[in-house]
Amino acid sequence: MNETRYDWLSDRWVIFAPNREVRPDQYRRSVSVLANTLIECPFCTGREHETPKPTLVLPEIDFDQTSSNRRSYPGNSVRPAWQVRVVPNKFPAIPQQDAFSESCELPTTALTSLAESVNSIGGSLAQHVQTKSASHLFQRNTSRGAHEVIIESPIHVDSITALPEDHVAYIFEAYRRRLNHWRAQRHLKYAVVFKNYGADAGASLYHSHSQLISLDFVPRDVETTNQRLVQHYRDYGCCYICQLMNEEEERQERIFYSSEHFVALCPFASRFPYAFSIIPRAHKSRYEEISEEERDDLAVVTKKTLGALESAHPSAAYNFVLQTSPFGDVNEESHHWRLRIIPRLSKVAGFEWGSDCFINTVTPEQATKTLRSHLG
Amino acid sequence: MNETRYDWLSDRWVIFAPNREVRPDQYRRSVSVLANTLIECPFCTGREHETPKPTLVLPEIDFDQTSSNRRSYPGNSVRPAWQVRVVPNKFPAIPQQDAFSESCELPTTALTSLAESVNSIGGSLAQHVQTKSASHLFQRNTSRGAHEVIIESPIHVDSITALPEDHVAYIFEAYRRRLNHWRAQRHLKYAVVFKNYGADAGASLYHSHSQLISLDFVPRDVETTNQRLVQHYRDYGCCYICQLMNEEEERQERIFYSSEHFVALCPFASRFPYAFSIIPRAHKSRYEEISEEERDDLAVVTKKTLGALESAHPSAAYNFVLQTSPFGDVNEESHHWRLRIIPRLSKVAGFEWGSDCFINTVTPEQATKTLRSHLG
Repeated sequence: MNETRYDWLSDRWVIFAPNREVRPDQYRRSVSVLANTLIECPFCTGREHETPKPTLVLPEIDFDQTSSNRRSYPGNSVRPAWQVRVVPNKFPAIPQQDAFSESCELPTTALTSLAESVNSIGGSLAQHVQTKSASHLFQRNTSRGAHEVIIESPIHVDSITALPEDHVAYIFEAYRRRLNHWRAQRHLKYAVVFKNYGADAGASLYHSHSQLISLDFVPRDVETTNQRLVQHYRDYGCCYICQLMNEEEERQERIFYSSEHFVALCPFASRFPYAFSIIPRAHKSRYEEISEEERDDLAVVTKKTLGALESAHPSAAYNFVLQTSPFGDVNEESHHWRLRIIPRLSKVAGFEWGSDCFINTVTPEQATKTLRSHLG
Repeated sequence: MNETRYDWLSDRWVIFAPNREVRPDQYRRSVSVLANTLIECPFCTGREHETPKPTLVLPEIDFDQTSSNRRSYPGNSVRPAWQVRVVPNKFPAIPQQDAFSESCELPTTALTSLAESVNSIGGSLAQHVQTKSASHLFQRNTSRGAHEVIIESPIHVDSITALPEDHVAYIFEAYRRRLNHWRAQRHLKYAVVFKNYGADAGASLYHSHSQLISLDFVPRDVETTNQRLVQHYRDYGCCYICQLMNEEEERQERIFYSSEHFVALCPFASRFPYAFSIIPRAHKSRYEEISEEERDDLAVVTKKTLGALESAHPSAAYNFVLQTSPFGDVNEESHHWRLRIIPRLSKVAGFEWGSDCFINTVTPEQATKTLRSHLG
């Protein structure tokens, strides 16, 4: 069964070629964790001084050592005082400048530079500042934003599947609060929370963590997807994601797990083997508007579905990406937040870089069957 | 220096964050070649029966054992009878059907299926056949095309830098002839030649080879780039690539090698560390129109520049992508063919998959300096 499928949302065709799954491979790849990762881990409790001052610590109150919280952690340790810490990334991809945050402390030079930017674009910071060079060929910009690390556990585990469900709920609560914080900064336009799990997915530290990057512009593909969602709302009078979920629930070919508030499905035209999305049943544009009940359910569903992936492919690296609506979007109601999980079992190669057309060797229907059988 | 740069051609912003180059890494990655790769290599001379019947063998004439051809090959072996063989891929990403090729032999079922397709779209094969399902949500297609392997050497080497320049010229000649062949098939719209070198770049076989995939549709990103090139031609009255080369030659910041016919430069807003493009000085839309002199020069330039990359980063995997104009494009004159080299020194991670915005830790200017110093 070789076929191409159209991903309506990204306006991309994907090639499915299950026959290529059996081709020979002459390479042995291995990834191992360096021996000193535990000793020198800056994310472990007791080494908090090695990371910048946190922007959020959960739980916020002094930890109440009641019996319900004494549940055993991996290694049978007692739950420490904090469960999730958010800190600025020491190696930020984008310089931070939250000039409009009430809590902001900016060095004078940054403020001067910001003032110059404001002047150069006529006082409006509501646009992506383009510092045009002599020609259109070399446009550059000093974008601003934020880059934070969400340290997901005080103890040295690599996966959130090793943590209790109520602990995972704290992680999703941290995402909510930090996204809320950055959305309130008027100069920012977009934020994404993502996780790189395993070296093949781009992780450089073993200890379970995710990241948040916020930008003062909306990347092209995000903008394309938004325009598609808006178009769908206009053309069909309903949300694309809502309609998709309804259709998928009727077909039951690609949904491999569902709960009261969420559906986990392998997208019809996914670019990566075993990719799946966790989609909220309630139509909400902003992840930040998740209810406490939904958040706790999301923790359960995420742990369960990632557990299925880890069971089916024990060595799989993966990325996950939390997609919430861009900031200040006038068509925000067309958006529907979701969590996308992208296993990194295949290599993106020359054909993909040359065409942006992906070859996937596992159909979503096969992936669904496999993941269902590993739900445990 | 953290800045964002705009890639005009793809309409994408790229984030440059050299500060992230020094962040710690707790993983040890290794790739090794399995011991039996030489013994069981289907691409080595003497094992031609293990691959499908070739669609092209170079040189075409019986090999003349003159003294000039007796030059020593790696391992001091004498040059074998063939130098480059092109064969259909045994594990094709896309099913082949060259119904309009004079040399075609199709099973009846395929012809029936094609006839049905022709009927279903009103007799026109000039469009991408979309077999729409009940809704717009699940569009699928049985695309057709071609997937060939260019076996670049009769002997077991992994890199074209190990081959003599006149041998490399045969490889580029093979690309030319096969692209010409596929362009002549009226049902095809696009073809790309690409190379996956090293396991991290998606290679599964060690022996030096590249691939050609042809499609009956133009992928979205290729179409976007084409539209941008057409727009530039209209807006500025000149080819974007030609103008870019002129500007880069004036600046000399990102050109690291040039010859009579080619310029090798690190693109201003490249998404990958050490990425570079080899661009022909002559404005030609189709790679297939390369002259013999240009082809021989391209062999020299490619070997030299890839050699610089291999010297600077001995373990680097890379992809290269030969981008020629899509087939049957009415605005073909706006296109300018080029060879893009994409080293795979960094991992594409969650942020990139979530935003399609890339973080590059090496500026093109720094990459240029490094590659210049390794030209040897």
